[in-house]
Amino acid sequence: MKEIEYIGYAAGILTTLAFLPQALKVFRSKKTRDISLLWAVLMIAGVFLWLCYGYANRSLPIMIANGITLLLLMVIFVFKLRFK
Amino acid sequence: MKEIEYIGYAAGILTTLAFLPQALKVFRSKKTRDISLLWAVLMIAGVFLWLCYGYANRSLPIMIANGITLLLLMVIFVFKLRFK
Repeated sequence: MKEIEYIGYAAGILTTLAFLPQALKVFRSKKTRDISLLWAVLMIAGVFLWLCYGYANRSLPIMIANGITLLLLMVIFVFKLRFK
Repeated sequence: MKEIEYIGYAAGILTTLAFLPQALKVFRSKKTRDISLLWAVLMIAGVFLWLCYGYANRSLPIMIANGITLLLLMVIFVFKLRFK
């Protein structure tokens, strides 16, 4: 594996794991007022397309990273709709 | 360009543009309480690494998408530090 690929993996791990503390925060506080609904909607649409892109390209890292991110975004989205 | 590449571009545009309404929201409201600081920090680190990855691979779309996302994340981060 080329050295730069490790940078790509580290980037993917960070931008995926980032959504864990955000999902936990809204789960615990039940407060989502400062989170943009449009942000959540556009992210879900975009991350879903990344998932399709990873599947079409048979890229397991892209599929895993975006699959986890999509699940965490869905948690944030449901709480955003449920608790204003 | 292969058809699937259009999906990749659409995905990149959506997950980049998503941060615009979120940055505007915190800019206008000056309220960031429901946004996780750890989310912002991990996203900035990860998106910065994606920018390096795009530069190393001479991928202009990855550089543009992550450059814009990084700027918008910096706005959110500064407001998160300035206004609790």
